[in-house]
Amino acid sequence: MSNTEAKSNFLTELLSRENLKNSSLEDCEKGLAELSQNINGLDEEVIAQVQARLDSLTKPKDSLGVLEEIAKKLGGIQRNPWPEIEKKAVLVMAGDHGVVEEGVSAYPQEVTPQMFYNFLQGGAGINVLSRHAKAEVICTDVGMAFPLAPPELMKHRIMDGTRNMAKGPAMTRHEALLSLLTGAQIAYRAINSGYQVLATGEVGIGNTTPSAAIISFITGLSPEEVTGRGTGLDDVGLKRKQEVIKQSIAVNQPNPQDGVDILSKIGGLEIGALAGAILMAGYARVPIVLDGVISTAAALIAVTICPTVSNYLIPSHSSVEIGHVAALKELGLKPIMHLDFRLGEGTGAAVGFHLLDAAVLILKEMATFESAGVSTKNE
Amino acid sequence: MSNTEAKSNFLTELLSRENLKNSSLEDCEKGLAELSQNINGLDEEVIAQVQARLDSLTKPKDSLGVLEEIAKKLGGIQRNPWPEIEKKAVLVMAGDHGVVEEGVSAYPQEVTPQMFYNFLQGGAGINVLSRHAKAEVICTDVGMAFPLAPPELMKHRIMDGTRNMAKGPAMTRHEALLSLLTGAQIAYRAINSGYQVLATGEVGIGNTTPSAAIISFITGLSPEEVTGRGTGLDDVGLKRKQEVIKQSIAVNQPNPQDGVDILSKIGGLEIGALAGAILMAGYARVPIVLDGVISTAAALIAVTICPTVSNYLIPSHSSVEIGHVAALKELGLKPIMHLDFRLGEGTGAAVGFHLLDAAVLILKEMATFESAGVSTKNE
Repeated sequence: MSNTEAKSNFLTELLSRENLKNSSLEDCEKGLAELSQNINGLDEEVIAQVQARLDSLTKPKDSLGVLEEIAKKLGGIQRNPWPEIEKKAVLVMAGDHGVVEEGVSAYPQEVTPQMFYNFLQGGAGINVLSRHAKAEVICTDVGMAFPLAPPELMKHRIMDGTRNMAKGPAMTRHEALLSLLTGAQIAYRAINSGYQVLATGEVGIGNTTPSAAIISFITGLSPEEVTGRGTGLDDVGLKRKQEVIKQSIAVNQPNPQDGVDILSKIGGLEIGALAGAILMAGYARVPIVLDGVISTAAALIAVTICPTVSNYLIPSHSSVEIGHVAALKELGLKPIMHLDFRLGEGTGAAVGFHLLDAAVLILKEMATFESAGVSTKNE
Repeated sequence: MSNTEAKSNFLTELLSRENLKNSSLEDCEKGLAELSQNINGLDEEVIAQVQARLDSLTKPKDSLGVLEEIAKKLGGIQRNPWPEIEKKAVLVMAGDHGVVEEGVSAYPQEVTPQMFYNFLQGGAGINVLSRHAKAEVICTDVGMAFPLAPPELMKHRIMDGTRNMAKGPAMTRHEALLSLLTGAQIAYRAINSGYQVLATGEVGIGNTTPSAAIISFITGLSPEEVTGRGTGLDDVGLKRKQEVIKQSIAVNQPNPQDGVDILSKIGGLEIGALAGAILMAGYARVPIVLDGVISTAAALIAVTICPTVSNYLIPSHSSVEIGHVAALKELGLKPIMHLDFRLGEGTGAAVGFHLLDAAVLILKEMATFESAGVSTKNE
């Protein structure tokens, strides 16, 4: 079903480490290189098979638009003309951001672990929407400032939140690589335990700020063009946030060719973990549904590291955050739903799962022109 | 659950007739007047209750955007702060169009009953997507040119398709009223048998032509601005279709104040039946989800007859047909999904049902700030 096995012995060994976070910088560089060098394009032959099936169904050609596109993509990813997406998971990564000391968020940093706890208890928006989509929520703390104490929840933590990117790099290169590989490890385990489709989710007070910084830097659009109000900034706060983003890019001068460098300087731990999960989705040929602006910033990092991985991305909604649509466009994607969400967590992606199910059902259950005795076009 | 009972004795008697289609013009006029005079606005007190509940949930205020709007609308329609939408049905109305003799469709008229039969067999797109949304498909032939023979399928047929609107009225006023009341009767029976939410669907070769005519006439936009390619016209065919629409409006000169007059002159039987179902949804306080351009043209007819009924409409997708978004805007609605569908049948509305379910689940299952111990904004 997946192809996580045996493509790379080193990567397999690295991702099996219980203490991945103690791995050396060299091991991390080697692991990421093996990961990104083993991501291939879609299977065009299977896509053609799916197209032929779609064209035999009782509907005008292409008239189920986006669902047909999704069906083809799922087939091409899974190398299966009858794609299977029974088991779904939303990977929710939690991290905090030193840049909040610049006053870029309306909520205090204590809210990150409170919401994380809410996820574990099943009471958050992402839990409700995932249950509705028959998806599991897999939560990982990769670096909240105030962790939850149980050891089981502590083992993937790389640090107590990032440093203030307005004053210097948010992370060292080593820390950024660890966030990427931790995300890859979480996705790897999920895929090996049978999940056939993943989605990206997150929580982290202040994380629309590094996301907008990444989107501005990678798309070339100005901070004003890509920066929104997060979970509730006023006009003064928005202006301040835009200034902080400008300053962060100016102070750090990331290397535009190097996704790890961008991530380390103006990114975040949960953004890195999501980028790593996206790369693993490409490696293992598993579709991954993108949520909002933070997930899409993570996808830009992943695509900077390995452009081919864009084939494995499935868009869901466009959030209220103005940078989101620009970032999707850069990825060659168009949002399917306009839900006016600005919650994050993976909520838009969870709603998007219904569209994937619909696409697979169309392919499997619709009658053909032949079986239903329906005439085709006037000739 | 519904309030179809006892508001109007005459309407109740009329809609209980097994041979509604034999009713006199006078009875039809009286019935429609009673129907449209008994549609009231939403319950603002319940909407305020739903808003208060939403604001207590663990998310920034309004951050679940469209789902929160839907939750409030459902509450305000059902007069219930805990709206119930377990039982869902898509009302699919089938009719044919005399205007096809002008060459406005790429498919022959025989396809209408073939697709209708496909619906009954469960093999069409609408069947697959309705099963996925746990909705029933209720199909009614209100006037196909080539009917299916079983008497049970014949009893709601008003005529063998409309007349050619490019040469004169598509229907008499009496026929148009019968189409409206037949649709109201179908919806009335569905609601009385327990359906808590409805959606509009249709089949009818050529029906994007009268739909574009209605949209052009009611919105004031030119035929060029609102006319698309239907299920597959080329450039020459599209130009011809636009000319036919212009001619139909010029020949018939509908009265813009009179929805029945517009329907009779440039409408269709399935469009009338959907408009009648929409009016009944308003009468019985049941939400109704709109599908594509034909459904939305029907909604414009319904709203011309009774403006208050717009409160009961829930948009779903925007179809490829360019008149659709203009028509939704006229109704004060914004599409939620961009699926690039151009199939009709109710397919976009069926996908939209998932969003209604999600809205109700958010309201019922999310934790509150208090129960989850999550901090609110920085003060």
